[in-house]
Amino acid sequence: MIRAGIVGGTGYTGVELLRILALHPEVEVAVVTSRADAGTRVDAVYPSLRGVINILFTAPELETLAHCDVVFFATPNGTAMLMAEQLLACGVKVIDLSADFRLKNAAEWSHWYGMEHACPELIAEAVYGLPEIHRDAIKQARLVACAGCYPTAVQLGFLPLLENGLIDVSNLIADVKSGVSGAGRKAELTGLMSEVGESFKAYGVGGHRHLPEITQGLSLAAGKSVNLTFVPHLTPMIRGIHATLYSQLTASVDDIQALYEQRYQHESFVDVLPRGAHPSTRDVRGSNNCQIAIHQPQGGNTIVVLSVIDNLVKGASGQAVQVMNLLFNLPEDLGLRILALYP
Amino acid sequence: MIRAGIVGGTGYTGVELLRILALHPEVEVAVVTSRADAGTRVDAVYPSLRGVINILFTAPELETLAHCDVVFFATPNGTAMLMAEQLLACGVKVIDLSADFRLKNAAEWSHWYGMEHACPELIAEAVYGLPEIHRDAIKQARLVACAGCYPTAVQLGFLPLLENGLIDVSNLIADVKSGVSGAGRKAELTGLMSEVGESFKAYGVGGHRHLPEITQGLSLAAGKSVNLTFVPHLTPMIRGIHATLYSQLTASVDDIQALYEQRYQHESFVDVLPRGAHPSTRDVRGSNNCQIAIHQPQGGNTIVVLSVIDNLVKGASGQAVQVMNLLFNLPEDLGLRILALYP
Amino acid sequence: MIRAGIVGGTGYTGVELLRILALHPEVEVAVVTSRADAGTRVDAVYPSLRGVINILFTAPELETLAHCDVVFFATPNGTAMLMAEQLLACGVKVIDLSADFRLKNAAEWSHWYGMEHACPELIAEAVYGLPEIHRDAIKQARLVACAGCYPTAVQLGFLPLLENGLIDVSNLIADVKSGVSGAGRKAELTGLMSEVGESFKAYGVGGHRHLPEITQGLSLAAGKSVNLTFVPHLTPMIRGIHATLYSQLTASVDDIQALYEQRYQHESFVDVLPRGAHPSTRDVRGSNNCQIAIHQPQGGNTIVVLSVIDNLVKGASGQAVQVMNLLFNLPEDLGLRILALYP
Amino acid sequence: MIRAGIVGGTGYTGVELLRILALHPEVEVAVVTSRADAGTRVDAVYPSLRGVINILFTAPELETLAHCDVVFFATPNGTAMLMAEQLLACGVKVIDLSADFRLKNAAEWSHWYGMEHACPELIAEAVYGLPEIHRDAIKQARLVACAGCYPTAVQLGFLPLLENGLIDVSNLIADVKSGVSGAGRKAELTGLMSEVGESFKAYGVGGHRHLPEITQGLSLAAGKSVNLTFVPHLTPMIRGIHATLYSQLTASVDDIQALYEQRYQHESFVDVLPRGAHPSTRDVRGSNNCQIAIHQPQGGNTIVVLSVIDNLVKGASGQAVQVMNLLFNLPEDLGLRILALYP
Repeated sequence: MIRAGIVGGTGYTGVELLRILALHPEVEVAVVTSRADAGTRVDAVYPSLRGVINILFTAPELETLAHCDVVFFATPNGTAMLMAEQLLACGVKVIDLSADFRLKNAAEWSHWYGMEHACPELIAEAVYGLPEIHRDAIKQARLVACAGCYPTAVQLGFLPLLENGLIDVSNLIADVKSGVSGAGRKAELTGLMSEVGESFKAYGVGGHRHLPEITQGLSLAAGKSVNLTFVPHLTPMIRGIHATLYSQLTASVDDIQALYEQRYQHESFVDVLPRGAHPSTRDVRGSNNCQIAIHQPQGGNTIVVLSVIDNLVKGASGQAVQVMNLLFNLPEDLGLRILALYP
Repeated sequence: MIRAGIVGGTGYTGVELLRILALHPEVEVAVVTSRADAGTRVDAVYPSLRGVINILFTAPELETLAHCDVVFFATPNGTAMLMAEQLLACGVKVIDLSADFRLKNAAEWSHWYGMEHACPELIAEAVYGLPEIHRDAIKQARLVACAGCYPTAVQLGFLPLLENGLIDVSNLIADVKSGVSGAGRKAELTGLMSEVGESFKAYGVGGHRHLPEITQGLSLAAGKSVNLTFVPHLTPMIRGIHATLYSQLTASVDDIQALYEQRYQHESFVDVLPRGAHPSTRDVRGSNNCQIAIHQPQGGNTIVVLSVIDNLVKGASGQAVQVMNLLFNLPEDLGLRILALYP
Repeated sequence: MIRAGIVGGTGYTGVELLRILALHPEVEVAVVTSRADAGTRVDAVYPSLRGVINILFTAPELETLAHCDVVFFATPNGTAMLMAEQLLACGVKVIDLSADFRLKNAAEWSHWYGMEHACPELIAEAVYGLPEIHRDAIKQARLVACAGCYPTAVQLGFLPLLENGLIDVSNLIADVKSGVSGAGRKAELTGLMSEVGESFKAYGVGGHRHLPEITQGLSLAAGKSVNLTFVPHLTPMIRGIHATLYSQLTASVDDIQALYEQRYQHESFVDVLPRGAHPSTRDVRGSNNCQIAIHQPQGGNTIVVLSVIDNLVKGASGQAVQVMNLLFNLPEDLGLRILALYP
Repeated sequence: MIRAGIVGGTGYTGVELLRILALHPEVEVAVVTSRADAGTRVDAVYPSLRGVINILFTAPELETLAHCDVVFFATPNGTAMLMAEQLLACGVKVIDLSADFRLKNAAEWSHWYGMEHACPELIAEAVYGLPEIHRDAIKQARLVACAGCYPTAVQLGFLPLLENGLIDVSNLIADVKSGVSGAGRKAELTGLMSEVGESFKAYGVGGHRHLPEITQGLSLAAGKSVNLTFVPHLTPMIRGIHATLYSQLTASVDDIQALYEQRYQHESFVDVLPRGAHPSTRDVRGSNNCQIAIHQPQGGNTIVVLSVIDNLVKGASGQAVQVMNLLFNLPEDLGLRILALYP
């Protein structure tokens, strides 16, 4: 059994890790930390876990975490970078769900996250946790920086077009919509149901932290620098991300649908829908799947890709477990055969 | 492997059966019927099932269903009673999620359901499918009439009080709130999001079909006839039932909390919360659990019981699979260790 | 023009007052206070008010407020009692939407609100702001303690039965459901859409602050002490309260429906629906109406009354404006002829 | 008083017309038709209108409608074109909320709406009902084809850029999100809360009926043919449209913000928000306002315009009343000073 620790167990990605790991046949959840709730039973805070998680929250201490085989950071940005080095030194594998190790450029990281990077020496080693691109590197990694929610939906949607050099990379548009759980479990006015329910809005149009992460990933796939306009929106539902991606074809291509199907044919968690389909976020809610459809309206040059995930699963905790399975040489979908909750 | 057939696979209880059975280790879903969608792939109608259900809808025919070991009726009322007898004659076990065989009095059934009963001779044999009360009978049954959603929440909530003769049975009140999926997948104005979203209302106060079913069950538990006021309400969410139950103590009792804990201590799916708790439907959403809390406001004679379930799981398809496990002598929770989706 | 001041303009009852008063033909909103937002334009915080409210938030100062004809307190409990006396001394009429002056017994107030009452000498003078009961007293008042949201829905629903002595007052039950705006605009986890969306729960079953207020009002109507079980619930919508009221008939009565129609025939804002109806909260959303229906299931002794209001309008700010109209001898519905927003 | 008739009074645009017209000081609602509900009181179907609309639904007959001064068609497409000519001949002004007279090319209309146009001879005369562009023509018109909901949000958002020739018209993108009331009050599975609640999806990416309408309008504004990619989405809320518009600057311009403010400075219902703002649909819910913000991310060539309306008000019935006010030489905002319902 793999002994797993979760730092930051009271946020939504933390409790989602617990939902998945509680039933994972090869994992024992050994430690769940929370400064605020230390000493409280986990299932007192999360009654949905009654009967399967029988431990207490503890304060985050190296000593305890060092006895784990793997530690997940389900923390706000800025925490993992303070503890990763020591855990790695103890032989613990680290899977970071926050953004601390996602950007390869420490200065850029500081610019977007508003603090100095506390552990720049590990940035180069950290593997970007999007298995559909970096599977082999993940298998060998000690430290994985899981891809963000928006970045996962956008990259999986653009990938086949970029890898095949089919589109104009100087003008990519990602119009992305997220459910409100993406903002985390924070006591803020902006997340109140009275504020966000029955309303729709864009935010961060001037610049969002996921922009450099997505640009970095798309540029890597394209083999050259790309220019992306990224507009995130808040949609009045709890879970789900829907990316609508626009690009201009620059090469002629016989069958884009076939291209996508081929690219993802061996992927357990990326599902290319039939021609003409429109994916719904509900069909991936609670599951680790990404569903994708490709359109070419009126047969013109504009390609419209629709890509949906559950932000807390494929966009966070499910992806982290997928990464863990790779790290420990387990079947990639072990513990992740969870069907979406419909209706 | 148990070969399972589902009649009426396009409704919400049908697709929920598929979600559960697709991952059940001892079941093969062999037949899913739908008159309207015969010939269509099941996962074309329900993309959430892509990758796990690879068959077509077929028309409901005895011939095909007769090769199953068990047939679930996830149909509107009035269908199971037309086919049950023939299936039983073929040695097929029948689990009916509709109301056809729930009431022991055929005349009462006709009164509430507005049609003649087509198969009154099986009514006596049919076992009421609420395992927490009729477990032993279910194990021996050929035909099980699964408890309805409201009846499950209300009966599990009142049971310990009635079995111990502690309350005045001449004045029981069940104020119950249901999510909108309880109305089924029907093309009706009354289910539109524009109609039911952001609104709350009672319905059927003059008389609801679940009243006689609940009264029958409560009277059985009390050992005498009970009088119940049952008011169902529609609440703007998709899944979940919350029953608020009011009764008057007639006997002195040391510790009602302990009584409930004792009554349900061996039940996998009934969870008595700690003193003072208030269950939320979200904590059982997608799971087969019933969570219960007991209150005695201001130390008076009025007992308030709060009981929550997911109407599509413990209130329908999960309960049906629990019943199937009993029928086939499998562990009662096989395939049902599903955690609630929070948030 | 009446010069109106609003203390606590950044909460939901404050902004709702602004929505109503901005179009009231006899009112000029002269002052809106907010400690946190002092110096900010009101419509920068509330873009829905752009074009109609062109002032800044100011700090709450007696000096400024003293120039108003009326001051509304849309504040948390405990604020109005600190300022009311001075404002009254300046000749300003005070309409308090908080609970500071609702309970006639200061000790009871302290028990439920957890602080000493700072101004007990005004409690006796304060008139309870439920115009359908205290209209004449309100017209003469200097200080009005507006009825709470739950208390309004429950009292209007029970009133005709109590005033006519028709029911057993030793066992009244109010099972009440509220939208989430009832909790106010507070940065708390418990109000997040991810927490309260798609979920239903009871709260405060052991004791809620509105219990003594309702009991006080019902006892007054009954002419004797009543015993009430009050269970509030949180329902996943923004606005609306639905009260489901249960009581036992003790007298024979020809026609309860007629009794209700007669009681409320001259009321602008209480609407008795036709026999057999089930009111929906959506039909009063945004309006100052209370819609009521009366049922007697199976012709038994239990009377079920359904009563709906918008918690922010008839349950708060609309009622406050209705009170203001009475205080200033204006038509009671002036500025309040707002139709519900459906769908 | 203007005598108004509404054909198709049971749909959402019909009932929204009633909500607005019921309080319009210069209008008497004389006729409301509905084949299905003829003979029923309007307020029996719509209890939100109790006390203000006291008439019955009638069958749609020329005879009755001919006595009106103005008739609104709040009908499905294909109805207004059958009756408009006769009403005009009787001297009745016609305001069509459906799409029958929006496209100037009858063949194109037939292509998108799947039927022959029954009254092509009136197409040329019909004035397109978007007052911010065609105010003067509307004032003189007998027949007005009100702009659709998506077209209103998109055109008002792009207008200043196109009128000034600032962007590349060969590649405009409109990514638009609508609440579910946009689909109308139809008994269809696709509108059930269980289907559309808590989910987000695109639809009609291959081609939506509003595409030719928007293209026609944008081309007119640009003075040349434009090429638009239009992707509508369904968002889980009842009311509201949010358009996110993308275009590429081709000319240098000092201050786009100022350009927008200037273009709309005299418009009562178009509100350009301050720099950097992100409009929310909630801030226009129930009102006739369009709120717009303009962004230029990272100072690049891509202009992102955010434009929000309430699809049932500025996108339908409010706009129709605005048109009526123009037709009858009334103040344009008469009866339309309705504030958005927040929260």
